[in-house]
Amino acid sequence: MPQITSVEVEDVRFPTSLTADGSDAMNKDGDYSAAYVVLRTDGTAPDGAPLAGFGLTFTTGRGNDIVAHAARQQAVHLVGRDVEEMAADMGGVYRDLTSDAQIRWLGPEKGVVHLSLSAVMNAAWDLAGRLVGKPVWRLLADMTPEQLVDVADLRYLSDALPREEAVALLRAKEAGKAERIAELEATGYPCYTTSAGWLGYSDEKLRRLCQEAVDEGYQHVKLKVGASLEDDVRRCAIARDVIGPDRALMIDANQVWDVDQAIEWTTALARFDLLWIEEPTSPDDVLGHAAIKRGVAPIGVATGEHAHNRVMFKQFMQAGAIDFCQLDAGRLGSLNEIVAVLLLAAKFDVPVCPHAGGVGLCEMVQHVSMLDFVAVSGTREGRVTEFVDHLHEHFTDPCVVTDAAYVLPSRPGYSTEMHPASIAEFRFPDGAYWTRRTGPGVATERERRPSVTGDR
Amino acid sequence: MPQITSVEVEDVRFPTSLTADGSDAMNKDGDYSAAYVVLRTDGTAPDGAPLAGFGLTFTTGRGNDIVAHAARQQAVHLVGRDVEEMAADMGGVYRDLTSDAQIRWLGPEKGVVHLSLSAVMNAAWDLAGRLVGKPVWRLLADMTPEQLVDVADLRYLSDALPREEAVALLRAKEAGKAERIAELEATGYPCYTTSAGWLGYSDEKLRRLCQEAVDEGYQHVKLKVGASLEDDVRRCAIARDVIGPDRALMIDANQVWDVDQAIEWTTALARFDLLWIEEPTSPDDVLGHAAIKRGVAPIGVATGEHAHNRVMFKQFMQAGAIDFCQLDAGRLGSLNEIVAVLLLAAKFDVPVCPHAGGVGLCEMVQHVSMLDFVAVSGTREGRVTEFVDHLHEHFTDPCVVTDAAYVLPSRPGYSTEMHPASIAEFRFPDGAYWTRRTGPGVATERERRPSVTGDR
Repeated sequence: MPQITSVEVEDVRFPTSLTADGSDAMNKDGDYSAAYVVLRTDGTAPDGAPLAGFGLTFTTGRGNDIVAHAARQQAVHLVGRDVEEMAADMGGVYRDLTSDAQIRWLGPEKGVVHLSLSAVMNAAWDLAGRLVGKPVWRLLADMTPEQLVDVADLRYLSDALPREEAVALLRAKEAGKAERIAELEATGYPCYTTSAGWLGYSDEKLRRLCQEAVDEGYQHVKLKVGASLEDDVRRCAIARDVIGPDRALMIDANQVWDVDQAIEWTTALARFDLLWIEEPTSPDDVLGHAAIKRGVAPIGVATGEHAHNRVMFKQFMQAGAIDFCQLDAGRLGSLNEIVAVLLLAAKFDVPVCPHAGGVGLCEMVQHVSMLDFVAVSGTREGRVTEFVDHLHEHFTDPCVVTDAAYVLPSRPGYSTEMHPASIAEFRFPDGAYWTRRTGPGVATERERRPSVTGDR
Repeated sequence: MPQITSVEVEDVRFPTSLTADGSDAMNKDGDYSAAYVVLRTDGTAPDGAPLAGFGLTFTTGRGNDIVAHAARQQAVHLVGRDVEEMAADMGGVYRDLTSDAQIRWLGPEKGVVHLSLSAVMNAAWDLAGRLVGKPVWRLLADMTPEQLVDVADLRYLSDALPREEAVALLRAKEAGKAERIAELEATGYPCYTTSAGWLGYSDEKLRRLCQEAVDEGYQHVKLKVGASLEDDVRRCAIARDVIGPDRALMIDANQVWDVDQAIEWTTALARFDLLWIEEPTSPDDVLGHAAIKRGVAPIGVATGEHAHNRVMFKQFMQAGAIDFCQLDAGRLGSLNEIVAVLLLAAKFDVPVCPHAGGVGLCEMVQHVSMLDFVAVSGTREGRVTEFVDHLHEHFTDPCVVTDAAYVLPSRPGYSTEMHPASIAEFRFPDGAYWTRRTGPGVATERERRPSVTGDR
């Protein structure tokens, strides 16, 4: 019986701020980073390799060490566990890790301690998949409705989704699973690209990348907006010109507006025939999103990458505040909370279009979308998952996108194992890259200033 | 011109879990703790002492180190600043500290990075008060309406509270300030006690402490509930028996219920004539609180100690979801965000009854309630501030409660300086107390387990 013998947590940062990849109206200089968790065991995987689990959450640079620090304290609860027992009761493991009453004060279920919990549980899910040689989408899709509901954290949701209703919802989709898996094997899961529209890119680069997206078969393109209306009008015009009238154009404001301003600004761009406005205001503002949705219809409202837990999604849906649910696989409490949100979305008939990009998010959300189609919503209609084409080279089982669709993952686990060489290069602050790079250009230099004491 | 020369951040933990002080249905074993920030300067206070600022946030034990770690990264932005310039633009300083786009990803404005921001800005406010020799309530009450609104963080609030309306609201309360200050000097600000009703106390202790509360002049007593309805019925009966029919009885469930259960349980206790049910469910659930409020009226709904920022309070008020606003001085982003919430509460006519207890919260909220009365709401009617009588001995300027009322603070600053001897004793893990205490009884032992690596 394999046991978890130790945990390693790494702070890995990639210097994306150098190229303006990932730049938007709120996040101007992100260094895409991962708080990376490895669960070692004394066992062997079905393929003969040492059995281990690899998980991460995504951050944008400074503070990644804070998340790693929290992950160490949470992951320690897994050391010494029997892997088979853990895999048989992932709902119980999740409740154990979220039930530390002292740590709970720091959230609850939000911010640093929820990001770190996600990293830890993502590693546990990866391990559970590797134990039986299945990709995690398949591990979950093969569960009975009752088993899948037991995995989900339904606390605080019963007013919107009683357990029995969740089970019934899944049971109704039992038929057709095999056909839907065959469909995914044939055509994958549709995705859209954000790579074209980062705010820091020039008009020429925008035009070129939109054309490339069209040439690669994408039916959707998303632009970052919100810094200057004049710029946004010009950039939307370029994008619409290149992609033509039949493809979908989305915009993303990354929370820069107050409610009324969001309605005005979005309305000013409405002539470009927008599918959605994403993150128009504070991610905490359920009622604000509802007001914006009323104000900008028929343009849809999308949010979720900063919606910090299932209780927020419950309200976004109860209030009719969103048209698209963009859950984040590194911000929600791993698949335990993601399954709960998929169930809510199915109940409220809101399409789930997961947030991705960053580091490792694309690797994870492909599993989420495949699971949603196979076992929960049963449809790909009106759904499209984000894809950003960078940093995949650091993963041993990177996502593959062909003809604007994610290819069905087939290797065991959650696709979140990074190459040891990538970690050695980009571990902060002592990886080879960060050791070489010094001087005033280092975005994180402030952390090393000597005037703060008491660090022990 | 004095400058901030260095920052010290300490992890201080008190072993309150040994006595069940602070025990409730969610928090069974809290070790009340402070992430404590000291801003040193090269200046001298008006009283001739070295000028410094002392601030903290409260946590319940494990994870206090995570908050301290985050506070160090945020506080460094204050080093090198001119103290007078800082004090003249506290709104700008606050925006600076919340505008780190990389750190923002970890919230935004919630969880660990917001708790730590609170500690840092609390120290800055303490420093600003000491610079001019005023308690912070007075520093703020002496501001013009425009100055006070400039201090407040109104971002994301304009749909509920435009800036001009906030200014007008304050202007309407300009007359009468001096009279209200005189009233506070004469009679203080009314408070209630939670010390009687912790869940871990025996019936005999509960009865004795309720009687002591009555003898000390309290008009309100609060009990923790939510673990066992049978126990709650018995405990409410004891409390009501002791305090008689004319005093107020409140109950606090610390988030243990789902929405429907909260309505059922509270209704089952309604015969004890309850003023409010506090934290009936998830602190994120605005719509859930609104449903509970409809379901349990005329019992009021109170929440706020876990409401993580002003956007949550905006919605609680817009949705008519709460009857009492229990803001927390260590969870909101210091006085910059607290003033915004006081303004919202005045606009929506919701009485502010701050959460306190913990470590240092009573010391801070006395300033908040005094400010609210003098400059914002202009009334104490229907308001009562929490008081818990423990851990005050660790502060150099502890709050004073007489005849069930906080005495108006008169010493400069925010009352948040701790005795150096207390820090030396309870600093974790190397203070004298924690060094002496070892073995399986140490609640925090898990943090020291050797099987987690990668900590650098």
